[in-house]
Amino acid sequence: MRVQKPKGTVDILPGQSGSWDKVERIAKDFFKRANYNEIRTPTFENYEVFSRSSGETSDVVEKEMYDFNDKGGRHIALRPEGTAGVVRAYVENKLYGPDVVKPFNVYYIATTFRYERPQAGRQREFHQIGVESFGSNNPLADVETIMMGHDLLAELGVKNYELHINTLGNAQVRKDYHDALVNYFTPLKDKLSDDSKRRLEKNPLRILDSKAPEDKEFLPNAPKIVDYLDDESRANFEQITNMLTQLGIDYVIDDDLVRGLDYYTGIIFEFMVADPSLWESATTILGGGRYNHLVEEFDGPETPAVGFGIGEERLMLVLQKQNPELFSDQGIDFFITNIGDETSFKAVEIARSIRNQGYSAQFDVDQKKLKAQFKKADRVNAKYVITLGAKELEEGLLNIKRLADGKVIDLSLTDINDMKLVMEKLED
Amino acid sequence: MRVQKPKGTVDILPGQSGSWDKVERIAKDFFKRANYNEIRTPTFENYEVFSRSSGETSDVVEKEMYDFNDKGGRHIALRPEGTAGVVRAYVENKLYGPDVVKPFNVYYIATTFRYERPQAGRQREFHQIGVESFGSNNPLADVETIMMGHDLLAELGVKNYELHINTLGNAQVRKDYHDALVNYFTPLKDKLSDDSKRRLEKNPLRILDSKAPEDKEFLPNAPKIVDYLDDESRANFEQITNMLTQLGIDYVIDDDLVRGLDYYTGIIFEFMVADPSLWESATTILGGGRYNHLVEEFDGPETPAVGFGIGEERLMLVLQKQNPELFSDQGIDFFITNIGDETSFKAVEIARSIRNQGYSAQFDVDQKKLKAQFKKADRVNAKYVITLGAKELEEGLLNIKRLADGKVIDLSLTDINDMKLVMEKLED
Repeated sequence: MRVQKPKGTVDILPGQSGSWDKVERIAKDFFKRANYNEIRTPTFENYEVFSRSSGETSDVVEKEMYDFNDKGGRHIALRPEGTAGVVRAYVENKLYGPDVVKPFNVYYIATTFRYERPQAGRQREFHQIGVESFGSNNPLADVETIMMGHDLLAELGVKNYELHINTLGNAQVRKDYHDALVNYFTPLKDKLSDDSKRRLEKNPLRILDSKAPEDKEFLPNAPKIVDYLDDESRANFEQITNMLTQLGIDYVIDDDLVRGLDYYTGIIFEFMVADPSLWESATTILGGGRYNHLVEEFDGPETPAVGFGIGEERLMLVLQKQNPELFSDQGIDFFITNIGDETSFKAVEIARSIRNQGYSAQFDVDQKKLKAQFKKADRVNAKYVITLGAKELEEGLLNIKRLADGKVIDLSLTDINDMKLVMEKLED
Repeated sequence: MRVQKPKGTVDILPGQSGSWDKVERIAKDFFKRANYNEIRTPTFENYEVFSRSSGETSDVVEKEMYDFNDKGGRHIALRPEGTAGVVRAYVENKLYGPDVVKPFNVYYIATTFRYERPQAGRQREFHQIGVESFGSNNPLADVETIMMGHDLLAELGVKNYELHINTLGNAQVRKDYHDALVNYFTPLKDKLSDDSKRRLEKNPLRILDSKAPEDKEFLPNAPKIVDYLDDESRANFEQITNMLTQLGIDYVIDDDLVRGLDYYTGIIFEFMVADPSLWESATTILGGGRYNHLVEEFDGPETPAVGFGIGEERLMLVLQKQNPELFSDQGIDFFITNIGDETSFKAVEIARSIRNQGYSAQFDVDQKKLKAQFKKADRVNAKYVITLGAKELEEGLLNIKRLADGKVIDLSLTDINDMKLVMEKLED
């Protein structure tokens, strides 16, 4: 019986892996230019890290967590998202201390896990690219975060996204809105889904996220948070959206936008892509917001924070359509064909020398016939083929053929030690 | 109560993460130049993938696996090493087929997990960088693999490693040697550790790996595989070592070298570093060998294969001592200080423009006083500080100070749109 990969996981094979690496390098270089540095937290955390941060009643914690007991009896879980571990690390490593520059700005590229029904761009093991900024409550921090999301998607070549934005206001606003939701949903309680009945007691905001058919008819008439905003929250929201306008970043104010995790406060946003060939309805590829209480939740000091996360699988689906160049195969520079056993070692030496000077080179470890070697050179998309026979070895000749036009260039074997010179002659 | 990271895991924080990224980029670029492409397999696999490949009696499978049942009752395990998943992917994706160029050469950079006692360079979550080459049994494939290990370590800046090499011979050799070990250990059986008593029946080779005090006294006099090699295996080994000599790659033939996993056949090797400040005895940072039967073990066709894996944590410990330059902080290019609210938006715009033109730039989202902003510029190791006041904004001036020598350069605000020009003027 064949052993197969677990359901909901994928193999990223050569041919695809190169584009993943390109996307991640673009993201890393982009973050670096904004002085956001990488943080790597463990793949699994103590279960409590996620139950505290995402909320006990969230779908993530209730249904989708890969949690288990390790051999020492610890209740651990594979991370379902990137932020909680980063906040845990921020507190545990005392990064709130005076010797760390504030805001403390980091990015991560993390493997994440949720036990869900697999579908396009949604797997059980998936990847998130995200940023977090700890320590500033200034609207400039919100604007910078949203701007970075916008500019990164642009740099990657995503074309038709729409930025949805909303605010959850300050603590008083969220309390008033919470009460309004309880007042609205309580008379409807018997008609709600079981999940939402429970949410009504623990976190009524979560009901607005429900996809259960029983709940859906009651959602359009539910109270909107915009009607509960006080002057301060409204002014903060306007300050942020005005700056976005000035920066030429289009957005839609979306009253229905609430995000699936408990920890958001203040501004929340999502970049959505509508592509009927990929998804039935517009789908979020980047989402984030402000979470000013999560550090305290982990027993750290009061710390405002804002960040976003990108679903890398969904991003790759979009990029495959919108920026196919990222998915093209560059091939290699040189393939060294050789004739006969006595030249095989020289082929290794030449390949090694070319590689160590910064160019790509392959030789035929299988030592097939010359014709088969040329075919292989062609299949790996080599730009140049070096042919090495007894004659070339004896006379110290380097015979190079450019596959694009068949042009043949003869150099000296010792020229290989100066690849800069070789490339100049070849590119003539 | 504070939530902490699980035992045996670490946070890689800014200040360290940059060096990890540098090392991984060097490795990726190195592999790419040899036309080895990346493969990414799932973080967890069905348990059977590892019990088949590593051997039921290996410590890895018996004691160190993070295995559990998922919510659907599947017995899965976090990968304890990189090769098994790659072999599973090779078979499942039919990469042995004629439309894939042979040998099929891949590399991986993978998070791996073993429930072990944590110590220097050994964690419960750790990282492996590895290569695998499927499809060639030619000694050139062994030589290329070892050469790549050697040259990659050199390129990374590892200085004092020693290459240990041995061979497990062909199938007949391994059978003869197996019998010799059984004959040698059976009379001693009562004195062996419990683990080794079991190994004696299932895989006596594994006894040679034992660290149990009861076993150790019997190891020096155990039969050596070198005495069981036939002419063919001996010739193959000599062919490989001769080529290494020709390539200037030093090695030690090490009769005691057997590797901890069941799947090796033919040549095996380890690159070891002796550094008393890190480890009591010489420690392997890269190990590998030939495994010609593993693809069949996964019900694929007969496929020779060879590869190696690097323990990234250990590598980083060595590099920190031997190539400290990898660990230096590059800082950022520009810090934009601004005075007063009316200039804050312009600071965002300037930072954005600089970043989008390929340089790094930061502004103060906290909008502290000018003195504090300059201090921050210094702490983030900025090369240049741009100061933006009402006057500069009004007159369209760009005031830039080079922190290294305090030199001040005045440009026009509109110059920011042509960073190439700006950099030319600044580097004068």
